[in-house]
Amino acid sequence: MNLYVCLLHESTNSIPKLIQHANANNYNVVATSINANMVPLDPYETDPTYPGTLLNAVDWNSKMIFLLSDVDVDSPNPKLREHAKQILLRDVAWAEHLQNVGSMMKRLRGPKIDNLAEIVRAKTKGNWFIQVPISNPEIGSFEHRKDVTDAEIAEAEAKDPWTWWNSLRFAVKHNSKVKVVIELNDLNRPSKETVRRWLGEPIEAIIIPSSLFIRNKANYYVLQKQWQIVIGHFLSARANIIISANPNDLSISQYADYLRKLASDHNDSHILNSYENVLEIPLQPLFDNLDSYTYEVFESDPVKYKIYQNAVKAALIDRVSDIDAPNKLTVVMLLGGGRGPLARAIFNAAELTKRQVRLYIIEKNPNAIRTLSHMVDTLWEDKDVHIFSKDMRDFSPPEQADILVSELLGSFGDNELSPECLDGALKLLKTDGISIPYKSTSYINPIMSAVLHQNVSQMDTIVPAFDYGYVSLLKNVYHIDNPQALFEFSHPNREATIDNTRCKEISFTVQKDCVLHGIGGYFDTMLYKDIHLSINPLTHTPGMFSWFPMFFPTHPRTLKEGQTISVKFWRCVDADKVWYEWQVSTREVWEHHNAGGSGYHMRL
Amino acid sequence: MNLYVCLLHESTNSIPKLIQHANANNYNVVATSINANMVPLDPYETDPTYPGTLLNAVDWNSKMIFLLSDVDVDSPNPKLREHAKQILLRDVAWAEHLQNVGSMMKRLRGPKIDNLAEIVRAKTKGNWFIQVPISNPEIGSFEHRKDVTDAEIAEAEAKDPWTWWNSLRFAVKHNSKVKVVIELNDLNRPSKETVRRWLGEPIEAIIIPSSLFIRNKANYYVLQKQWQIVIGHFLSARANIIISANPNDLSISQYADYLRKLASDHNDSHILNSYENVLEIPLQPLFDNLDSYTYEVFESDPVKYKIYQNAVKAALIDRVSDIDAPNKLTVVMLLGGGRGPLARAIFNAAELTKRQVRLYIIEKNPNAIRTLSHMVDTLWEDKDVHIFSKDMRDFSPPEQADILVSELLGSFGDNELSPECLDGALKLLKTDGISIPYKSTSYINPIMSAVLHQNVSQMDTIVPAFDYGYVSLLKNVYHIDNPQALFEFSHPNREATIDNTRCKEISFTVQKDCVLHGIGGYFDTMLYKDIHLSINPLTHTPGMFSWFPMFFPTHPRTLKEGQTISVKFWRCVDADKVWYEWQVSTREVWEHHNAGGSGYHMRL
Repeated sequence: MNLYVCLLHESTNSIPKLIQHANANNYNVVATSINANMVPLDPYETDPTYPGTLLNAVDWNSKMIFLLSDVDVDSPNPKLREHAKQILLRDVAWAEHLQNVGSMMKRLRGPKIDNLAEIVRAKTKGNWFIQVPISNPEIGSFEHRKDVTDAEIAEAEAKDPWTWWNSLRFAVKHNSKVKVVIELNDLNRPSKETVRRWLGEPIEAIIIPSSLFIRNKANYYVLQKQWQIVIGHFLSARANIIISANPNDLSISQYADYLRKLASDHNDSHILNSYENVLEIPLQPLFDNLDSYTYEVFESDPVKYKIYQNAVKAALIDRVSDIDAPNKLTVVMLLGGGRGPLARAIFNAAELTKRQVRLYIIEKNPNAIRTLSHMVDTLWEDKDVHIFSKDMRDFSPPEQADILVSELLGSFGDNELSPECLDGALKLLKTDGISIPYKSTSYINPIMSAVLHQNVSQMDTIVPAFDYGYVSLLKNVYHIDNPQALFEFSHPNREATIDNTRCKEISFTVQKDCVLHGIGGYFDTMLYKDIHLSINPLTHTPGMFSWFPMFFPTHPRTLKEGQTISVKFWRCVDADKVWYEWQVSTREVWEHHNAGGSGYHMRL
Repeated sequence: MNLYVCLLHESTNSIPKLIQHANANNYNVVATSINANMVPLDPYETDPTYPGTLLNAVDWNSKMIFLLSDVDVDSPNPKLREHAKQILLRDVAWAEHLQNVGSMMKRLRGPKIDNLAEIVRAKTKGNWFIQVPISNPEIGSFEHRKDVTDAEIAEAEAKDPWTWWNSLRFAVKHNSKVKVVIELNDLNRPSKETVRRWLGEPIEAIIIPSSLFIRNKANYYVLQKQWQIVIGHFLSARANIIISANPNDLSISQYADYLRKLASDHNDSHILNSYENVLEIPLQPLFDNLDSYTYEVFESDPVKYKIYQNAVKAALIDRVSDIDAPNKLTVVMLLGGGRGPLARAIFNAAELTKRQVRLYIIEKNPNAIRTLSHMVDTLWEDKDVHIFSKDMRDFSPPEQADILVSELLGSFGDNELSPECLDGALKLLKTDGISIPYKSTSYINPIMSAVLHQNVSQMDTIVPAFDYGYVSLLKNVYHIDNPQALFEFSHPNREATIDNTRCKEISFTVQKDCVLHGIGGYFDTMLYKDIHLSINPLTHTPGMFSWFPMFFPTHPRTLKEGQTISVKFWRCVDADKVWYEWQVSTREVWEHHNAGGSGYHMRL
């Protein structure tokens, strides 16, 4: 995932010189017409223009984006259409000849895409970059007007370039070699929601015209704050940079340097960024034993164990008064000790509050027990600590606990079976004992993410991938609506008959025309009183990275702004397993009568 | 494919210190017992010995090969067997806990491998390195004795460690995560054929005991010439280096440096080495248009066009005497001009011989025509050269040729359809005209290559991969017997009815117990008189790299030394396509009577 900065200029009389000039000005790649010529450009040239030996194969592949002729292969005029096809096919053949893994870019010209899609589908090598204006300027202006008619909106929406792209994407069957390149325009600053929606698409790059740059007081070329924000969103989503400029512009290196700096400011380079948009099968720590690597990742979270420590501190203080502190023993049971991070947090809490604690650590993974035992021998020799190599559901304790502490929560809260585990551990707890955490809640929302969809589809050849839920660091994603609470579990659960099955349906409102690719899953958990952890995007605990969201895929379907979609989730339990089922439905509203009481109404 | 040099020492009281010491002496990796302990080693220790936090996850994966306990899980004694299983399973669980993509090594102890295979199959993460002595020392000694009985040989062969490995490999279903580590021994220098056979196996590394090193006159530690050759073979096949030595040996860095130097001497680092053991679908230049990258690879061959130039030179001199040279025109037709390398060779030949040449270049790829036309305009303005953008089979020439020059040969000679193309071009040739090349012959031999087999199997989930032939740079391969000639094609073919179908069966003798994984394919071609090109391993044109061998896969089957196997090939032709079929058969000899006339015979 190395960012490139590309210089776009339609014509040149020498590709090698253009590349040399671009390289000298801090651009890695150039984008220029495939019909760039030794003589002045003529896109209708049919004779040879330059030889394939002009560059070597590596350079053709790595230093060039070919701009294909801007012809309309879907023109209503049959003569123009056939001529356009002929030219485009010639361009494609030449590009495929020069590049075997390279890239070519074609501008989308309007809502009709059938013939273009056919040509795109037929290309077998390299990538298609589909160049699309970020929005229809007309729609942008509607956002500030209240007098727009439905007909005007419908007409303008037909011109929404996202809709063109969406048609093409469906027509080429979501092919992962077809990516979108977003063209910015200084006359048309897009709305927030427009930008956000593009982030759910497979973005290759953004095109930034040099006219977007203004001089600051120090006479340097910079971008206005608002454009910095727009472009920053794309850079955060790992879009590459294409600067459209005249190569003779003396400031082109300034543009490149400025944008590289902006990109590095928006590059959240945490240690786990190789997981972006990757689909992982969720861990099953109850069934499988975790390995050292997994423990290490969790242990390195800078925030989680601090917050746990705070929760245990608060609980110790509430349960034992300062006066009783020297004498009254609090029995803490740690359910799932791993390689010791929570035990450390509990010992810290005891020390900081000066409370007496006896700690039982129950851990079912015999490999983790090796490390824990070593810690007892070397680090915790003076502590009142006892290790049991057991499944907590089968553990008979020497005494009952005041506090159960556990971190059995998966990305979707209950998906690592914390309800089942903690219910099974109820017998370990005194009748007035408490559980940290005492509640966990899952959240869902509909999302668009073309990249995640492509990843699911790839797996679908091997497993029924649309029936799996995944853990994924969501990067290229558009939140179609905000998350809402789904299932809730409380601990300890002292009900006579415990039922951990659940079923709930939630409605969401589509904020903008888009495509549903799946359901995002999150959770939050209350540790003690109001001390909590959350990976719900609306309330995410700052800095905590050890849980990624979940993704439950659906087959892609285009949604319209204002539409209501309902998502229904089941948590099912049988003797052997727990699983989720999920269902999406929409309602088509036929007629809505007397809106606002504009017809029949009763006067007060 | 980065070589590593590993220090092997069974026990240590501190893994981190061993790693530090090894790194300081130019080793990247250490191999030590998984039960290495903070206290002296006890392989039957069941209590924790060291914590998982001793190294971080990256180091566990990248710096350690775990030696598993040398226990016999296939012992005939049930009590010992069960105890061994328990220990090995404990070791494996701990290794899987510490490493998620790492490596563990287990010594093969004898011909019985069923229980070990079951444990190997059950492991889901990382690699198994199976440690095997290079040969049975006893068999080595047989090679110099003539009085050995069949029973003695059979008994010794049962102890051939390759046979143990072969049983295990079949039992784990040729899993690509199971690799072999060959252990050398200063008392047992293996025969050439033994070494060659191992080269067909998935070799991870060789273990070189420090006792193999001797001091030279300058007091440096070196290897004897014979060991240099043996080890050199393994290094050429990209084996890694494991040096078994006492860490306190003051010369360990000398051993590492010496072997790194030897490895770099045996590393043929040509530009195409990323293709080693890779399977490629053969090009179909008649059906598909080649791209710039492919042309560039072919054009960069340092030898091929020089030899073509020599052939054309010799032909020109033979057809036109020195006296006629200034006036007599030789018409040369180049069938398949590509981006011009053969045209250049022909012009060079004409200049060097001072013969007058008119060159027609026929090329069906319109993209290559662009480059050729550009060359005519810029490089060959003063030449008598004419380009035709045509399929040679449909070309009506303005005049007939004295010499047809073509390079339509694939790795198997006729597999790019040169017979069909050249037959179709017969009408272009004068009745006394000649073709360069005038003959091509394909060759085959049976080969063992576990790596190629694994690669074919991986593809078999997508296509019927065992019915494809592949182009592959054969690296990890054992030639079971020498190649023999298969099909021959001569040009021009002026027979009344041309039949390009072929069928032939060839017998080969197995040189040593091994596994058949497929058939290697090669060709040679006579350009003019005795000027020729060859990729037959027995006669390979030195320095020529533009053709890799072919590989026709078969399902793995163990063969015995001395056995005869027959390989039958068909070249089939119908209206649309040409294809090969291949069949392997063995004959089981039941009884052979009166060998050497030792019984009934007639005295002279």
